[in-house]
Amino acid sequence: MRTLHVDLGERSYPIFIGADLLGRRDCFSPYIAGRQVAIVTNQTVAPLYLQRLCDTLAGYGVTPIILPDGEAFKNWETLQLIFDGLLAARHDRRTTVIALGGGVIGDMAGFAAACYQRGVDFIQVPTTLLSQVDSSVGGKTGINHPLGKNMIGAFYQPKAVVIDTTTLATLPARELSAGLAEVIKYGLICDEPFLCWLEQHIEALRALDAEAISEAVERSCAAKARVVNADERETGVRATLNLGHTFGHAIETEMGYGVWLHGEAVAAGTLMALEMSHRLGWIDERARNRGIRLLQRAGLPVVPPQEMGPEEFLRHMAVDKKVLDGQLRLVLLRQLGEAVVTADYPRDILEATLRTDYAALVRQIGSE
Amino acid sequence: MRTLHVDLGERSYPIFIGADLLGRRDCFSPYIAGRQVAIVTNQTVAPLYLQRLCDTLAGYGVTPIILPDGEAFKNWETLQLIFDGLLAARHDRRTTVIALGGGVIGDMAGFAAACYQRGVDFIQVPTTLLSQVDSSVGGKTGINHPLGKNMIGAFYQPKAVVIDTTTLATLPARELSAGLAEVIKYGLICDEPFLCWLEQHIEALRALDAEAISEAVERSCAAKARVVNADERETGVRATLNLGHTFGHAIETEMGYGVWLHGEAVAAGTLMALEMSHRLGWIDERARNRGIRLLQRAGLPVVPPQEMGPEEFLRHMAVDKKVLDGQLRLVLLRQLGEAVVTADYPRDILEATLRTDYAALVRQIGSE
Ligand SMILES: NC(=O)c1ccc[n+]([C@@H]2O[C@H](COP(=O)([O-])OP(=O)(O)OC[C@H]3O[C@@H](n4cnc5c(N)ncnc54)[C@H](O)[C@@H]3O)[C@@H](O)[C@H]2O)c1
Ligand SMILES: NC(=O)c1ccc[n+]([C@@H]2O[C@H](COP(=O)([O-])OP(=O)(O)OC[C@H]3O[C@@H](n4cnc5c(N)ncnc54)[C@H](O)[C@@H]3O)[C@@H](O)[C@H]2O)c1
Ligand SMILES: [Zn+2]
Ligand SMILES: [Zn+2]
Repeated sequence: MRTLHVDLGERSYPIFIGADLLGRRDCFSPYIAGRQVAIVTNQTVAPLYLQRLCDTLAGYGVTPIILPDGEAFKNWETLQLIFDGLLAARHDRRTTVIALGGGVIGDMAGFAAACYQRGVDFIQVPTTLLSQVDSSVGGKTGINHPLGKNMIGAFYQPKAVVIDTTTLATLPARELSAGLAEVIKYGLICDEPFLCWLEQHIEALRALDAEAISEAVERSCAAKARVVNADERETGVRATLNLGHTFGHAIETEMGYGVWLHGEAVAAGTLMALEMSHRLGWIDERARNRGIRLLQRAGLPVVPPQEMGPEEFLRHMAVDKKVLDGQLRLVLLRQLGEAVVTADYPRDILEATLRTDYAALVRQIGSE
Repeated sequence: MRTLHVDLGERSYPIFIGADLLGRRDCFSPYIAGRQVAIVTNQTVAPLYLQRLCDTLAGYGVTPIILPDGEAFKNWETLQLIFDGLLAARHDRRTTVIALGGGVIGDMAGFAAACYQRGVDFIQVPTTLLSQVDSSVGGKTGINHPLGKNMIGAFYQPKAVVIDTTTLATLPARELSAGLAEVIKYGLICDEPFLCWLEQHIEALRALDAEAISEAVERSCAAKARVVNADERETGVRATLNLGHTFGHAIETEMGYGVWLHGEAVAAGTLMALEMSHRLGWIDERARNRGIRLLQRAGLPVVPPQEMGPEEFLRHMAVDKKVLDGQLRLVLLRQLGEAVVTADYPRDILEATLRTDYAALVRQIGSE
């Protein structure tokens, strides 16, 4: 088992990474203050892992709360089901909420924990690669609003994050690739050596080689924790974690939540950020193509939807959280391994980026 | 204008108290970081004070969000209207939410500010006595759930609290009395000299004597700020602010939200806490009767609903937030001016308290 520490003063917490951690009581019990526990999960994950976790928590008063599965349910109505479950079973302020599932469950359960009686304890047990390397670290929780993704939420830190890498065995390949988009992101924004490592291990990761997975999860969590430590409330450098996300959120919103996976939309958005950074003269064609090829080898769709042009993108990007007083800030790459957040670029380069024929670009790279 | 400072490190904020502050731009502009402002108010308060505040904020992009009026609307559906209004007018993360109204508006607008894009700036402009002396200080925000009051919420501090005492002129007398219940509470729990002052000025307060009101609001806010400073997240001494509230919440819930005013239920609950403290031998009959008489002179109903017996009370008190791992903690008085929080009392004294014939008790005191 590997252990990382996220250092946030009195809200510090450990991240445990390893095989079969669902069975390790010592990963959980030191972080459960009372006797009541609510396990929030969904209809897909419950049959796979709920019993296992319940066995590990024998002796606590455990309330399972099983939600419908999907990004489309990451909304207030579903959140209400968590509050209903907590109140029906009379959970008090010393209860602990455990999120067992992917990022959707983690975001909703975390937000419910933040709001229930104005805040109760919370443990993350992420079971998708994306949630293991991204959403379970950093304290962002929340739900979607019909007018925008993740618009309602809270910054709320877990007491512990328990990453059982064995759970990835049941994850659909498409979801695994979506998680790799975020893994690659860390290499691109702040860790060039990790990017090289990924270029050598991408097939091992897709084959779920245990050692490679643990290494990638640990380096990803460490990268994210480093950035989050430096900037807990996303005023500066933390925003670099949104590489590909401003474009990606526009894709997710325009296509309807759940049609494109988050990581898939981020992959296409990252391609656009690579292209824009290249158009600004910041990275050369070789560097851009290296990024694109790695995303492709991870099994990701990298071409943004054909039906989206500048108008569709800009409509959604204007309510994106990175707009400060009307100015659209973007995460771009100075070089591979170094991202910057900036609103200082020629508008026509943004528009050219949004108009680029990415299908043609990707075809051309593929034939090289 | 009087100014108090609530000292919470980097989340410190000022409380301004005085006549006609709605017209004072200098009370607002230093606390508005961006150019967008949303004023959250309701259908009763908007016609009275919205234009005034809009005039004062000339030059900002102001979005008024006018909610239906009443505790019955302190729920998710109404909260959604705030998010809808913010998103429709494209408010970004630098927006400032201003709550213009009583405690219902303050709690909802504050919770909306806490959750909107995971937290935006917030200014309280309380317009009821209760919200001026209580709900606008301390950072508690939230909404009700069908299974319990204030069950969903956040601790979230405002950037400033602007208390315009002139707004009390339009407040119904019944609401003014409800606010006085909380004012009297501060005297009872931690400020015996203030209790004496109140016994001398209770008629002046009911007549809205400007000097008396400012003095009472300032001393109340100071008392609350003192307690909150000592214990921001309600682990210990802060719970004494709930004198009368455990019983009171049971009354509010059993009778249906909005039938009894919050302050009225607290007054009846305070009577019960006085009686229980007396039964425990902590305060003598004279002290108990002093408290009861002051509540009565404030124009408050002090007799709990006849239809509620031990069973009805205990049913609601068991989900009260003061229950820790199944043990019912209560706020009681060691003496006038000193409250304690305790779960260490004989159960039969609680039950005797719940069975007491308060109508008879109050009649007897009245005839003394
Ligand atoms: N909070 C953050 O910082 C943050 C960061 C990134 C993404 N997110 C959010 O995370 C969400 C995406 O997370 P996700 O990609 O994990 O999606 P997800 O939670 O929807 O999970 C993907 C699918 O895999 C299933 N699943 C989960 N674990 C499984 C397992 N072990 N075996 C088989 N199936 C399993 C889920 O039930 C679901 O059908 C989005 O809502 C996004 O906004 C949040
Ligand atoms: N956050 C906290 O710490 C805290 C503390 C105590 C109470 N509360 C909450 O506060 C709420 C009660 O607050 P409240 O008593 O202010 O009730 P309220 O907000 O419902 O206001 C009472 C009535 O007075 C009207 N009103 C407000 N200002 C007016 C004015 N100047 N002139 C005429 N009418 C006016 C309102 O529209 C409403 O009809 C409850 O929901 C309670 O839970 C919160
Ligand atoms: Zn992401
Ligand atoms: Zn109160």
